[in-house]
Amino acid sequence: MAMDPSVAARQSEEAAEAFFRAAPPLRDRDRLAASLADFLARHSAGGGGVVCVTSGGTTVPLEQRCVRYIDNFSSGQRGAASTEYFLKAGYAVIFIHRRGSKQPYCRFLPEDSFLDLFELGEDSEIQVPQSHSSVVKAAISNYRKAIDECLLLKLPFTTIFEYLQLLQMVATSMNCLGHRGMFYLAAAVSDFYVPWESMAKHKIESAGGPLNMQLNQVPKMLFILRKNWAPAAFCVSFKLETDPNILLQKAEMALKKYGMNVVVANELANYKDVVVMVTSNGGRTTVSRTSKAEDLEVQLTDLLVKMHSEHIAQPNS
Amino acid sequence: MAMDPSVAARQSEEAAEAFFRAAPPLRDRDRLAASLADFLARHSAGGGGVVCVTSGGTTVPLEQRCVRYIDNFSSGQRGAASTEYFLKAGYAVIFIHRRGSKQPYCRFLPEDSFLDLFELGEDSEIQVPQSHSSVVKAAISNYRKAIDECLLLKLPFTTIFEYLQLLQMVATSMNCLGHRGMFYLAAAVSDFYVPWESMAKHKIESAGGPLNMQLNQVPKMLFILRKNWAPAAFCVSFKLETDPNILLQKAEMALKKYGMNVVVANELANYKDVVVMVTSNGGRTTVSRTSKAEDLEVQLTDLLVKMHSEHIAQPNS
Repeated sequence: MAMDPSVAARQSEEAAEAFFRAAPPLRDRDRLAASLADFLARHSAGGGGVVCVTSGGTTVPLEQRCVRYIDNFSSGQRGAASTEYFLKAGYAVIFIHRRGSKQPYCRFLPEDSFLDLFELGEDSEIQVPQSHSSVVKAAISNYRKAIDECLLLKLPFTTIFEYLQLLQMVATSMNCLGHRGMFYLAAAVSDFYVPWESMAKHKIESAGGPLNMQLNQVPKMLFILRKNWAPAAFCVSFKLETDPNILLQKAEMALKKYGMNVVVANELANYKDVVVMVTSNGGRTTVSRTSKAEDLEVQLTDLLVKMHSEHIAQPNS
Repeated sequence: MAMDPSVAARQSEEAAEAFFRAAPPLRDRDRLAASLADFLARHSAGGGGVVCVTSGGTTVPLEQRCVRYIDNFSSGQRGAASTEYFLKAGYAVIFIHRRGSKQPYCRFLPEDSFLDLFELGEDSEIQVPQSHSSVVKAAISNYRKAIDECLLLKLPFTTIFEYLQLLQMVATSMNCLGHRGMFYLAAAVSDFYVPWESMAKHKIESAGGPLNMQLNQVPKMLFILRKNWAPAAFCVSFKLETDPNILLQKAEMALKKYGMNVVVANELANYKDVVVMVTSNGGRTTVSRTSKAEDLEVQLTDLLVKMHSEHIAQPNS
């Protein structure tokens, strides 16, 4: 028998509260809150859109003094690329990202050594090989513009505790924007975690044979975001699966269960080439990239910007 | 009752063989082996030292199509810094590193955006702010020199399976160098793993309540490295603990158990400031950095280079 929705809702809220109560406090919270308030004050007066992009995977520490942790696969490519296209479309972007994940305008970098991009000229001036010169220069120029014009606010996280506290802070602050706010939740968020108080204090000993672990479920914060933190915002979440047979079904379930406006369904094997947008009006839109030279995120953000405009124009549709 | 050493040795070897048999094959093995053979051929003729530096943490996949994995904390700072100082001391370096970890000559980079280092001048030329200019130029120049003179070979890994297969390949190849080879094993290697064949094929479902996992111990490959892969080399391993009360004792145990020449003991809380070198002649040498401006690795590599010279000069001591 299905649970009474109001009971399920209260249980979700209680689980979320318990999670936040037990989480280690966010470092630098005051400084982050101040920079966020400043950023939103600049953009709340105008009529433009503000999008919160989350990107990269969260970690789950297994020890309080963390040596070992569980991590979720995500390069941050999608979030970084989408941030660039949202900026191009005139949005202000709050980029909540995993430390060390891909960054806007830096995606073209060689994986392990940015030094491979540079040479010294005869007079010791820094040069970029001709083949990369225009890309690197455009990146420097676009990045400078976004930072100097206060259109990009970068907030880093590593653990699931940091991520969810940042998301809560940003979402409750963005609530004042009403329908002009968008959430583009591309981060790969852990489903399981070890509660802080039940965590080993020191590094787990390796001499004692096999290791047994029990992990708890992370409360479903999308539901709380939609219901309490920023109810009027336009919400886009992502569903990643490795098994295509269950993907769309799980995306539709997430759409209903958490009240998203759009769920973007993607498969690990081809997430750069094709996604399906499942929307709250029952629609399914397949977005594929037309050539390897173009990012899928060009079309994806374009469609979302249009849907968000409609959401702003017809708040009750 | 302690186990008969020869029985323990055979068990270790069998565990190692079983690990390699079941591991997913290393991608690009032939290309990597060829570049390694080429690198060693250049350096086997001369009389100089060759060091294999391992750096960064290994991951343990929890699913075959990997979305989730267990990771070990390690920025790769120690390995990257030490590589620079070994190169400066005239060594050829094989740098086995975690993808995305700190790289030699790039350690000074801002964490999330290398673009913060650059500006465009009036004629669109790339500029570095005066404050960073000399550091960036020295980095580009040193890196170019190491690559162009074939003194640095970079081999990347992500998983424990890749790491141990690379280490085996490098160690057995370096065996031809005899006492001129050094291993500087700074990577943070997982103690536990999920055997490939018992791993979930798809992403683990999150709807089924708490998650229970059982992880097996990773075979102690240091023992095999010393005994079979490269018995004449000079071997330095690292022991990281969060609890200072057990650190030195565990370092001494590792020294004896695996036949290392040196174990460098470090504590998570202050590993950048102080380490203790535990040596096979019973010595303990504390290495502390004298100022925040100097890397601890300057002294550490300097001491090791001297000890390695003695090892080369007096192979039976």
